[in-house]
Amino acid sequence: MILYALSLVGVAVFAASGALAAGRKRFDWIGVGVIAVVTAIGGGTLRDLLLDRHPIFWVADPAYLWVIVAGAAGTLVYVHFRRPPDSLLLIADALGLAFFTISGAQVAEQQGLPGVAVVVMGAITGTAGGVLRDVLCNEVPLLFGPMDTLYATAAIAGATAYLALQAFGVERTSSALAGMAVVAALRLAAIVWRLRLPAVRVREETPR
Amino acid sequence: MILYALSLVGVAVFAASGALAAGRKRFDWIGVGVIAVVTAIGGGTLRDLLLDRHPIFWVADPAYLWVIVAGAAGTLVYVHFRRPPDSLLLIADALGLAFFTISGAQVAEQQGLPGVAVVVMGAITGTAGGVLRDVLCNEVPLLFGPMDTLYATAAIAGATAYLALQAFGVERTSSALAGMAVVAALRLAAIVWRLRLPAVRVREETPR
Amino acid sequence: MILYALSLVGVAVFAASGALAAGRKRFDWIGVGVIAVVTAIGGGTLRDLLLDRHPIFWVADPAYLWVIVAGAAGTLVYVHFRRPPDSLLLIADALGLAFFTISGAQVAEQQGLPGVAVVVMGAITGTAGGVLRDVLCNEVPLLFGPMDTLYATAAIAGATAYLALQAFGVERTSSALAGMAVVAALRLAAIVWRLRLPAVRVREETPR
Repeated sequence: MILYALSLVGVAVFAASGALAAGRKRFDWIGVGVIAVVTAIGGGTLRDLLLDRHPIFWVADPAYLWVIVAGAAGTLVYVHFRRPPDSLLLIADALGLAFFTISGAQVAEQQGLPGVAVVVMGAITGTAGGVLRDVLCNEVPLLFGPMDTLYATAAIAGATAYLALQAFGVERTSSALAGMAVVAALRLAAIVWRLRLPAVRVREETPR
Repeated sequence: MILYALSLVGVAVFAASGALAAGRKRFDWIGVGVIAVVTAIGGGTLRDLLLDRHPIFWVADPAYLWVIVAGAAGTLVYVHFRRPPDSLLLIADALGLAFFTISGAQVAEQQGLPGVAVVVMGAITGTAGGVLRDVLCNEVPLLFGPMDTLYATAAIAGATAYLALQAFGVERTSSALAGMAVVAALRLAAIVWRLRLPAVRVREETPR
Repeated sequence: MILYALSLVGVAVFAASGALAAGRKRFDWIGVGVIAVVTAIGGGTLRDLLLDRHPIFWVADPAYLWVIVAGAAGTLVYVHFRRPPDSLLLIADALGLAFFTISGAQVAEQQGLPGVAVVVMGAITGTAGGVLRDVLCNEVPLLFGPMDTLYATAAIAGATAYLALQAFGVERTSSALAGMAVVAALRLAAIVWRLRLPAVRVREETPR
């Protein structure tokens, strides 16, 4: 099943991104492993908990955890000897975000949820792992802050495109592929051209 | 249904408080939106997960998410031009806390849980959203620290009063209203008179 | 039931460790109580949520919450007058870790999960409460960092030993006791001899 293979690649990529973040905090092996696991399965786990889907995707299928351990270990060995391949990781992460967002939206769609909940579930599936990674590293989640290059925005836009295309009569698989393309393209464009959402402004003082 | 309308007002108020906290951290629009959502639905979601109530209250009913988005957007527009109406927000937040605490306690009560679990569930429903907001903003949760003006204390006191009144034979709706009054009154009194619980003291050194 | 008594002792110990951590942050009484509760029940609650076991262990049985409140209150009274008995607490915490890890692994085993998921569930049950404690105190979780003395390592090793012994034909109760001994011994040895896992190294600069 091609979807299953893609989801394994996706968790491996997210595990690598988690392992790298934890390594930069100088965590030990276990800390790196925990962060890799949380980054890779956090979004899907939260989706499954919120939608009451059991067993949770990685609980009954050991392949996910082994792939994460392998991905994290491979990352550690690589970055011990060479600089992290940051550009490659960003591209892989954008593809992982695209895949998880749309697959999360599809799961919510199959349960007959309203559109706004489908988009939220897609965004949660794609991004919650990274948010948990940052919380456990005791940092402000990257995707909230001024350094964020449209991470959650890309997920929301892609899931919305997926639903909108279906509403216009486009077939489901084509809509899914187009939704993934929107996520990945928006995210990569944001990285290349440093696109950012403006920070919010709160007026604290009465102007004189 | 008046309870449903109240719960929508409650999530709108909590969304405004979350949007304001995130705006003060200079998050971007998405960050503000995420924090608003988490603040507004975090407590009820945790309650529903812990009590295995599905679908979770906002998953099947899109009104909640739309009200949150509207509340957060309205807050952002307002604070772009004028200083935040802090006093008004504190009063609204106290009412939201009162409503969510007692409604959370009622849900636990209907499942036949023991009294201490009813109180804990009420307090979780009322306060967990704010704790999640602070964790995601990478701050020590307000309600744990020396600046806390009886936030969780008010929730625990109100839920306890709700149960105690029923134990003394007071009818359920009256007990609920009285419980809400206890929460709101205690919280507002604590704000006005700066009431605080004492900080705990840990003796680290042996006295000479 | 001896297992039930052990689990109550375990939550009391974890509650004491949480109360002490929160007291050192100068939280107020409620903050200390919340951290004590989260530390004591966090791991088991996450396990029950992930495995869809309801009612969650402390929801239906009020004894757990009362024991936690008593453990936290007793700790506060003690440390108000005397220095915390850190060595005693570390030993008790190692025993709590051992008990919760193996009992968590047994729960996962009874659901027929694959071995790697059993080990992960054991480690989650034993350690997640402490991670939540650190996140809520706005600190990098102790067990990820360079100061960690094999906390999660001990849990993973003990749960693995429990499974391995059974695979070699050792009877279940004996395997459980041996697994607990592995956890406690490894943890205490790590504390005494300051054993640590090496921190991970990420090469950021190309060597000249």
